[in-house]
Amino acid sequence: MGFELKGKVVFLATGNIHKFNEARAVLAEQGLTAAMLRMKGVEIQSENLAEIAGTSALATFKECHLPIIVEDAGLFVYALKGFPGPYTAYVYNTIGNAGLLKQMENLLNRQATFRSAVAYCDNLSGAVTCFEGEAAGELTHIQRRGGRATFGFDPIFKPDCTDKTFAEMTLEEKNKFSHRAKAIRKFAEWYKST
Amino acid sequence: MGFELKGKVVFLATGNIHKFNEARAVLAEQGLTAAMLRMKGVEIQSENLAEIAGTSALATFKECHLPIIVEDAGLFVYALKGFPGPYTAYVYNTIGNAGLLKQMENLLNRQATFRSAVAYCDNLSGAVTCFEGEAAGELTHIQRRGGRATFGFDPIFKPDCTDKTFAEMTLEEKNKFSHRAKAIRKFAEWYKST
Repeated sequence: MGFELKGKVVFLATGNIHKFNEARAVLAEQGLTAAMLRMKGVEIQSENLAEIAGTSALATFKECHLPIIVEDAGLFVYALKGFPGPYTAYVYNTIGNAGLLKQMENLLNRQATFRSAVAYCDNLSGAVTCFEGEAAGELTHIQRRGGRATFGFDPIFKPDCTDKTFAEMTLEEKNKFSHRAKAIRKFAEWYKST
Repeated sequence: MGFELKGKVVFLATGNIHKFNEARAVLAEQGLTAAMLRMKGVEIQSENLAEIAGTSALATFKECHLPIIVEDAGLFVYALKGFPGPYTAYVYNTIGNAGLLKQMENLLNRQATFRSAVAYCDNLSGAVTCFEGEAAGELTHIQRRGGRATFGFDPIFKPDCTDKTFAEMTLEEKNKFSHRAKAIRKFAEWYKST
């Protein structure tokens, strides 16, 4: 019963294939193997992404006893007091890119930061290890998409020091700049060393 | 140790004094005594208010072993696919009434429903009893306040069959129409009978 993990493997609990593909590419850079675990742990309401991801990682570990990472991300818009923040996925699914651009009409300050928290859990003690990454940038005035299938607010977020939105970048380019890649990379460096 | 509950008492776990005052008035109508318990149980992320309130009521009961109700409410705007829904408090605290009115600009359909779920827990078995109430209405074009201290989206929500927003009503008037009063009243009728 059970199965043997060969090499360093980690299970990303998510139902979002785009998120998984981004994370897998970063983990592969670091020589790690990622598996997608389509299980949805309970997400708590909190304004702290690490707390949300950590609670979910522990709950998922309790169900499957595999080394788990959960990633939670949010877009924090300065002029909107951080909205949509930890509720980014919900806000994307309701008002979407068009709704967020509407909310920004006539606002001069378009600064926004994408934040990511990656929580790792491989035990029942409640100990969860968290890694964070962020990408500072600004909201565009219109949606700008490239050829790639993207998700969330990628078509309206342009990181600083680039001219492209996340949606206009290849996955490899996005992984140079993105909050998620930065957090996953920190996790990977730590995980290789354990 | 411990203390004796005299008569029928229930503890409403909330940090919101306005919510407590509304609930207390309805419970008093029914001959019940309400106590405010300033404890914040964990709120999960869910689009189901009863699930959010139920999880929180059980978690709060586990900490204090008192008969607990938790009330969770949301404003569901038809033209925004239900936004802000279960995240109403967060959205109020970030973009606020002005932000929601901005989101509604140029939208013809201004229908919205306030929903409330009240969850009761008095045991560790995980059994939680839920009651729901709703108020159908529409969003106004401007904020309309009366003299009363109100909270949330009350200044922009006008229930059907009235000309006043929730914020223009006295507490007694609001309790005739409100989602929260309806849910609390259902709970009270059940609680008296147990």
